[in-house]
Amino acid sequence: MNILKKNERFDLIQKKGLGVIQNSKWFSYGIDSVLLSNFVKIKENSMVIDLGTGTGIIPLLLSIRDKASIIYGIEKQDEVAEMANRSIVTNKLEKKIKIKKMDVNDIFLEFSKSSFDTVVSNPPYFSKGDAITNTGNIKSTSRHETSCTLEGFIIAAAGLLKENGVFYMVHRPMRLVDILYYCRKYKLEPKEVQFIYPNVNKSPNILLIKCVKGGNTELKFLDNIYVYNERRKYTPEIYNIYKNLGIDVFDKE
Amino acid sequence: MNILKKNERFDLIQKKGLGVIQNSKWFSYGIDSVLLSNFVKIKENSMVIDLGTGTGIIPLLLSIRDKASIIYGIEKQDEVAEMANRSIVTNKLEKKIKIKKMDVNDIFLEFSKSSFDTVVSNPPYFSKGDAITNTGNIKSTSRHETSCTLEGFIIAAAGLLKENGVFYMVHRPMRLVDILYYCRKYKLEPKEVQFIYPNVNKSPNILLIKCVKGGNTELKFLDNIYVYNERRKYTPEIYNIYKNLGIDVFDKE
Repeated sequence: MNILKKNERFDLIQKKGLGVIQNSKWFSYGIDSVLLSNFVKIKENSMVIDLGTGTGIIPLLLSIRDKASIIYGIEKQDEVAEMANRSIVTNKLEKKIKIKKMDVNDIFLEFSKSSFDTVVSNPPYFSKGDAITNTGNIKSTSRHETSCTLEGFIIAAAGLLKENGVFYMVHRPMRLVDILYYCRKYKLEPKEVQFIYPNVNKSPNILLIKCVKGGNTELKFLDNIYVYNERRKYTPEIYNIYKNLGIDVFDKE
Repeated sequence: MNILKKNERFDLIQKKGLGVIQNSKWFSYGIDSVLLSNFVKIKENSMVIDLGTGTGIIPLLLSIRDKASIIYGIEKQDEVAEMANRSIVTNKLEKKIKIKKMDVNDIFLEFSKSSFDTVVSNPPYFSKGDAITNTGNIKSTSRHETSCTLEGFIIAAAGLLKENGVFYMVHRPMRLVDILYYCRKYKLEPKEVQFIYPNVNKSPNILLIKCVKGGNTELKFLDNIYVYNERRKYTPEIYNIYKNLGIDVFDKE
């Protein structure tokens, strides 16, 4: 049986066989998902949910460490959710990862409040009005807040988590005020922020944030991560992140 | 006439004579004030106010660039305000810098709303409950939110500024959530954040923030500043900041 549709390819994540189906016309996963998956800490037998899962890459990467009892991936776009589900089936991870086709705004139609230990998300980075977009297409919907806003993602995360449950998100530093404001507003207290820089001479372009539901108010900054060294190769820290997840890297010096 | 009281000394800021009276038992100014003064941009003939001025160091440093029409320094501690005023008189800057002894919470008893172009502040860094303190003494009051909280400073700044007026503050990164939350809440939109690191291998320990009253929502991160190089000497960027302000530095390599 050919598992691939038009414009799709099966990209190996690991040599041992874990892979993800991606459509070359849509959004492909990048270093953001890898950094987020490495940042997330999951306890054994915990309930995990990924809001805006896209190809399902984050549940797939999280499954490598194999501790959660179940990981839900929520995706509102029909064709994307269907493709993500085929990835899960192809990897024989149906018992561990469940893809649900739904809008994050509707999350409580399906899930109970305070039912998760961990919420993760790599949401659309851009506000509805930002930048010039081909609205209506799948790539644009993956990158823009077309229906669910950043506030909506945070409301969903806050509602889904048990007390002391943890929310992990990757986003852009330019949205930091929005992120911290809404997290505080909905009692997801920001505890750790880590900035990712393209290199030591640039401003940060990615941020990782960890929030604890009902946590106390003290923010810790983790050491910066620099992606490339002065020779435009991955730094040892990036290489180690890929290595820890068992992902093949072709950019080694 | 001896301008100094017990435990006081007159510390030269610049070779050409600008100086500040400091009490060796109280809070002495540090690199935070220098970094903030360098970060602040003041237009000609603008009205400027420094909330929690202490020794008056920030108005003194700002006066070096000589653009504001008048700079107010607000200090609630009697003896500190009196000492700051003696510094201003000693420097013959009474026409340019006015020290007012008052609590930031009471600011609108003296000043009108929407009457300033620029508000600057190096407020107490620690919350009331933080750390172990000798409550009641002057050094502790300069470092802890004994009466006016961070929220109070931000309410005062937001009220004092005209529309599009600018608020500059130096603070600790661990308070970033509070800072961004309250600034957004009171319509002082954060526009620029700059982190200061002791060196490239440490986490940031100082942050500079610029907010615009009624500004739009996009945050820019400025390039990091590293204070010391690997030989524990000031980096060229720090040395240049001191040089720009005409301050003598004794830590040159």
